[in-house]
Amino acid sequence: MKNEFELMDQLFDELLPITRSITGEGVRKTINILKKFIPLEMFSVKTGTKVFDWEIPKEWVIREAWIKDEDGNEIINMKNHNLHVLNYSVPVNKKMSLEELKPFIHTIPHLPDAIPYVTSYYKERWGFCMSYNQFKSLKEGTYHAFIDSELKDGELNYAHAILPGQSSKEILISTYICHPSMANNELSGPIVAAFLYNRMKEYRDRKFTYRFVFVPETIGSIAYLHRFGEHLRKNVYSGFVLTCLGGKNYPLSFKRSRNKKAPINKIVDYLISTGEMELIVRPFTPTHGSDERQYCSPGFNLPVGQFARMVYGQYKGYHNSLDTKEVMTIEKLIDGVNEIEKILKIQEWDGYYINTNPFGEVKLDKHGLYPDINTPLNGNASNNQKIDNRKQLNAILTMLNYSDGEHSLLDIAQLSGIHLDNLMNAIKLLKEKGLLKGPYYEKRSLFE
Amino acid sequence: MKNEFELMDQLFDELLPITRSITGEGVRKTINILKKFIPLEMFSVKTGTKVFDWEIPKEWVIREAWIKDEDGNEIINMKNHNLHVLNYSVPVNKKMSLEELKPFIHTIPHLPDAIPYVTSYYKERWGFCMSYNQFKSLKEGTYHAFIDSELKDGELNYAHAILPGQSSKEILISTYICHPSMANNELSGPIVAAFLYNRMKEYRDRKFTYRFVFVPETIGSIAYLHRFGEHLRKNVYSGFVLTCLGGKNYPLSFKRSRNKKAPINKIVDYLISTGEMELIVRPFTPTHGSDERQYCSPGFNLPVGQFARMVYGQYKGYHNSLDTKEVMTIEKLIDGVNEIEKILKIQEWDGYYINTNPFGEVKLDKHGLYPDINTPLNGNASNNQKIDNRKQLNAILTMLNYSDGEHSLLDIAQLSGIHLDNLMNAIKLLKEKGLLKGPYYEKRSLFE
Amino acid sequence: MKNEFELMDQLFDELLPITRSITGEGVRKTINILKKFIPLEMFSVKTGTKVFDWEIPKEWVIREAWIKDEDGNEIINMKNHNLHVLNYSVPVNKKMSLEELKPFIHTIPHLPDAIPYVTSYYKERWGFCMSYNQFKSLKEGTYHAFIDSELKDGELNYAHAILPGQSSKEILISTYICHPSMANNELSGPIVAAFLYNRMKEYRDRKFTYRFVFVPETIGSIAYLHRFGEHLRKNVYSGFVLTCLGGKNYPLSFKRSRNKKAPINKIVDYLISTGEMELIVRPFTPTHGSDERQYCSPGFNLPVGQFARMVYGQYKGYHNSLDTKEVMTIEKLIDGVNEIEKILKIQEWDGYYINTNPFGEVKLDKHGLYPDINTPLNGNASNNQKIDNRKQLNAILTMLNYSDGEHSLLDIAQLSGIHLDNLMNAIKLLKEKGLLKGPYYEKRSLFE
Repeated sequence: MKNEFELMDQLFDELLPITRSITGEGVRKTINILKKFIPLEMFSVKTGTKVFDWEIPKEWVIREAWIKDEDGNEIINMKNHNLHVLNYSVPVNKKMSLEELKPFIHTIPHLPDAIPYVTSYYKERWGFCMSYNQFKSLKEGTYHAFIDSELKDGELNYAHAILPGQSSKEILISTYICHPSMANNELSGPIVAAFLYNRMKEYRDRKFTYRFVFVPETIGSIAYLHRFGEHLRKNVYSGFVLTCLGGKNYPLSFKRSRNKKAPINKIVDYLISTGEMELIVRPFTPTHGSDERQYCSPGFNLPVGQFARMVYGQYKGYHNSLDTKEVMTIEKLIDGVNEIEKILKIQEWDGYYINTNPFGEVKLDKHGLYPDINTPLNGNASNNQKIDNRKQLNAILTMLNYSDGEHSLLDIAQLSGIHLDNLMNAIKLLKEKGLLKGPYYEKRSLFE
Repeated sequence: MKNEFELMDQLFDELLPITRSITGEGVRKTINILKKFIPLEMFSVKTGTKVFDWEIPKEWVIREAWIKDEDGNEIINMKNHNLHVLNYSVPVNKKMSLEELKPFIHTIPHLPDAIPYVTSYYKERWGFCMSYNQFKSLKEGTYHAFIDSELKDGELNYAHAILPGQSSKEILISTYICHPSMANNELSGPIVAAFLYNRMKEYRDRKFTYRFVFVPETIGSIAYLHRFGEHLRKNVYSGFVLTCLGGKNYPLSFKRSRNKKAPINKIVDYLISTGEMELIVRPFTPTHGSDERQYCSPGFNLPVGQFARMVYGQYKGYHNSLDTKEVMTIEKLIDGVNEIEKILKIQEWDGYYINTNPFGEVKLDKHGLYPDINTPLNGNASNNQKIDNRKQLNAILTMLNYSDGEHSLLDIAQLSGIHLDNLMNAIKLLKEKGLLKGPYYEKRSLFE
Repeated sequence: MKNEFELMDQLFDELLPITRSITGEGVRKTINILKKFIPLEMFSVKTGTKVFDWEIPKEWVIREAWIKDEDGNEIINMKNHNLHVLNYSVPVNKKMSLEELKPFIHTIPHLPDAIPYVTSYYKERWGFCMSYNQFKSLKEGTYHAFIDSELKDGELNYAHAILPGQSSKEILISTYICHPSMANNELSGPIVAAFLYNRMKEYRDRKFTYRFVFVPETIGSIAYLHRFGEHLRKNVYSGFVLTCLGGKNYPLSFKRSRNKKAPINKIVDYLISTGEMELIVRPFTPTHGSDERQYCSPGFNLPVGQFARMVYGQYKGYHNSLDTKEVMTIEKLIDGVNEIEKILKIQEWDGYYINTNPFGEVKLDKHGLYPDINTPLNGNASNNQKIDNRKQLNAILTMLNYSDGEHSLLDIAQLSGIHLDNLMNAIKLLKEKGLLKGPYYEKRSLFE
């Protein structure tokens, strides 16, 4: 049986060649392949449907795209790299001089080997992309520009999978599936999301319901919000967008939620302030980013942030053909699954607890939680055992004292300096003894 | 036609010689001269009227004041400088020895050339002021002290001018008119206020109503509050007292409003934190200062601060004859008008805005607010144009995202780091497109 | 007549030899001796009574305890030091080999001269304590272990004294009386509490009611809360536990109240931030400490902290026979009485005041609170007098301006930087003139 790395590697290779765009066959193929790992339900929205200030565009069909020189030699062909065709290009079939052709060819002069990724979703255009080196080598002459494409009434597709938990409160995890053959800025997100689904599926007593969402970027999340936004506004407790999670030597990076009280912000703050995880934090901004711009639009203001690693501005492969598996690395996607699972585990335990015996201290020995003799020697315990006992005792006393419905687990960890693992262990013991109730997700009075 | 500097200079020269006090002809003359620049309405309150814990004092009439030696030589005469007579002096006509006279003569030994400014409003006294050098040179002998003055039942006067705006919310601008021939600590305030009136008069679509108040210090503002205090408490949104606005090489200085949430405090904080204006901040204190002590008394607690430049303790001319035009300078009064107008302009734009399409992002290209192709080359735009486009785009996206009725313009400027000018430009564009409403002056829900 | 030092010294010597435990004759004897200084009312709770999660244990009677060697030589005898018997020991009368006896002897190997203090309240055990040096010198042979003790149905005792004030709001001062012959960690608390009672008794116009509580640690405060907890929750405004108040060269140390808004926290913060008292602050923690752990259990959350000086971990005498009068010193107990009295005096004055003339400034000269001439010379006053006058004027203006029911005296001291003594003097003057009302213990509107 294949291990996680091999499965991920194989999934990557299967998804890479697909010519995705915001609509069309590429999105549907991608969803179908992902179904092997996550039970996605696919939805469709018809071309022309109004979604808030937007309208679902026509569906793009792309069959062929190439340029030939006057001798019939292929200069470029999207069969070799699907970035060669301007994404959403209208058809063309025209012979023209180099001068006439040039305005339709996009390059990146400062990255002369890279084929750029160019889109024109909302204005009808045709065009090609090639490396600047190739562009410079084009000779005078007549060229044949050919694109066999279609913009037709069709549909936009997105998909989700819901993993139920004890509570109807939801964790929203969203990623996008609309870029063609790029690694970091396309496949890292859906692959990490799919594997995270499988991790969370294994949690017994899962407290939250997990909503995994796969959409074309921007228009897809807007369409998703148009259909599910009211539900999300009522039920989403925490969440994040996944994007650009690859990049050797890059730590995980969190873009804060616009909603300052978002639980995901608090978890990341905790992990950073205690040094428990290497994490970079970016402020929320509506000017750059991914679908969190939609989820955090003021009408929804969902408590979601965004996780990424190597982002726009940090690597030269951004939006061009240098965005490859080698730059992304499968290892970093596995790191991402591990790190985000850890964060979700903390989310599962965080919340407000209630001490069921809040008047005076609990008599711990009666409940089997305390040594019954108070002496400097303390029986036969080794020094390490005594230190561990004291740590556990501190965690128990601390949880009992602050479980007043007003301090969350993270508050308690932060004010006491006690490691979250010790507190979570104390919670487990105290809940077994009936001495603690919770977690609750809003402050509450001890006396309710 | 005279320019602003010449007009100001001329107004100064006309106002300087008047023998002002808290009551009397000097105040009325001053108001009448100021009417050439600002349409002041004058009010009077009768001697003996109770105003809160105070009572309107008698009106002071001063006709003549001098000391002569036994040979009839004039030692001092208020015709030469009106500081020579103790302000509010009762009459005297008495020949007396130097020893007898000395307790009635006020000097400043550590500033031997300065004639001090001494008042005795609430206890009947007579007295003279002279330079310490002159005082020391007085020879033994008999002197004739003569003051032809009167304290009679009369009135206290103050004046205001109201410049209406779209809203009944008011900006209170108050200054005083009760000191005799001094420059910085008397004329700088009323002159800046009068010229500011003329600047604000030019604003089309002025949002606020501006209330310009000219009062004798302390007793005048108390009398003003006695008459208009209830109205001010309901309507004043922001404001400040103007005092001591001259002083070469001194930056503008703001004394914070007692009311911590006062909008004027927030504007000054913004200007300082961004370095947009050189400004010094002083904390609010009730122990020193001008009429803000009355406006900020706890029963009113108006959201007003105080602007000044060279204040008490910073120049040796304070309350004596060294407080001259040369020390104040007309240039600095013009600087003050410019700086305070800038602050009022920010006040005009600040407030809470509402995005009328808060669900998902607005489709900017549809509204003519976005380039319609996403490419590294972006048509023929020059680099500078692209940077400007991006700046405008950032400002637009930022205003739309945070215009949720909970973030004020200054909040948005501060959290985004985007220059206020760019945000104000974005507001203009977005309001033209119907995409933004506001400003409102209280937080409000997006869904109202 | 004896002075405070001599009285304290004598009380210490009388209390030291008593064999206290959490129940029994020792507690009652201690209370009776303290009655000479503070009119304590004693309470009893029967063995077996449920108090929250706890139960009142049996009463311990201890008559004799010794070990003899086979020649009848006394090895140890509790007559020589009552730490030699394990506190709460059950009876024993047994001859046994050294090997058999050893597990019942407690020592501190790293403090070879110290007899440890060991207790076993909630599990029936017998045992002895001795110095490690003595323990090492024991020879092989047969020993006779003898303890004549009894655990019988009886009672637990505690006591309190209530010193009434104008308000029913209470200051809770609690200390413990359950350790045998130790100085710092037993007698420092009750002695300081008793002498503090006598200081506060002298306050005319005492605003608060003072509740002095003397309990066996932990079980005693839990029993006290079981009986008086509801009353305390409603009436306690401020307070603290007193423990370990001795220790040459140690500053007073405050353990913050769990309740962040506790007035006692604010006073200590004020004293530290202004440098007015040398004080160390410890955070609140439920894992170590004294009865504040019970008072601050989440069901009560009383606004009480804890004062101490040389605490657990700071001196080698903690819980052993090295905890002596020489290490504690009577001088430090007197320092403690002085320091805590100062804190209570501030507590007496703190609160919210109301300016009865809040509209504009008060006309101070009218009320005899202001010089009636405004001159740089100001009559015949010396420079120091002038500085003092200005200080008083500042304090008066500041109290009047901020006495709006929203700023407490400590808030005003902190925001103005004016010394508390000056503000308290201004309050006295202003209350005499009818210009100020208060203190109130909750924020209130000026217009109530």
